[in-house]
Amino acid sequence: MEQRVSLITLGVTDIARARRFYEALGWRGQEVEETVFFQAGGLGLVLWHQDKLAEDAGVPPTEPGFRGTTLAQNVRSRAEVDAVVAAAEQAGARVTRLPAETFYGGYAGYFLDPDGHAWEVAYNPGFPLADDGSLTIPDFSTS
Amino acid sequence: MEQRVSLITLGVTDIARARRFYEALGWRGQEVEETVFFQAGGLGLVLWHQDKLAEDAGVPPTEPGFRGTTLAQNVRSRAEVDAVVAAAEQAGARVTRLPAETFYGGYAGYFLDPDGHAWEVAYNPGFPLADDGSLTIPDFSTS
Repeated sequence: MEQRVSLITLGVTDIARARRFYEALGWRGQEVEETVFFQAGGLGLVLWHQDKLAEDAGVPPTEPGFRGTTLAQNVRSRAEVDAVVAAAEQAGARVTRLPAETFYGGYAGYFLDPDGHAWEVAYNPGFPLADDGSLTIPDFSTS
Repeated sequence: MEQRVSLITLGVTDIARARRFYEALGWRGQEVEETVFFQAGGLGLVLWHQDKLAEDAGVPPTEPGFRGTTLAQNVRSRAEVDAVVAAAEQAGARVTRLPAETFYGGYAGYFLDPDGHAWEVAYNPGFPLADDGSLTIPDFSTS
């Protein structure tokens, strides 16, 4: 597994309120399908409803180990998703979602580290990855 | 507040176990004072005891709003810490630690966003920030 983070997703209860807060701090993002994406250096900070996030991660919202935040590492192929999730399981992670096709045309799985921190490993052909692993949120207005 | 993240700190219950997990995945970090720092692109991923993290953030570990994870934005001066924390409070954040000197010779404060996600705003002269805001974990073996 490469040593990098592509996305930080903060589970929120009110997308509009959360977006207003970050925009009041001067951040500028894009909203698509009730999800807000902020480019933050070489990664994306994402606001998403916490119940949807928990469901996506394969953990009930009431799961003690679920922190309401996920980290994601985007990789370059479906095979790499499979390999990283398998390596995590081998290292002692609990796989909460086996790698599978996603609604956005990608492929992703989730695991929890030994303290319950959730990681998504994703192949998303719509989110360009540079050679150094930095991720660029696409311009959704043109897609 | 600039649109970037400097550190992601994962609260853990067993530093050695957590470090072994990430190292089994191929990550390589440095441990100093029971804290593990991994360089992850332009930011640092940090493992720290969750009780210490909660105390540092000014929230009890049992606080419903505390997620066991914090994000940090490192800035370039004490005055900028004050300004960002004040702006966050103005935007509706709950300030859980007023900006103050830190044990490592820096200056930092914490706030919770409207969903309880904890942000530290820190000036740490020991952690270089590049012009683009990316952060480099120093080599502790030479310090």
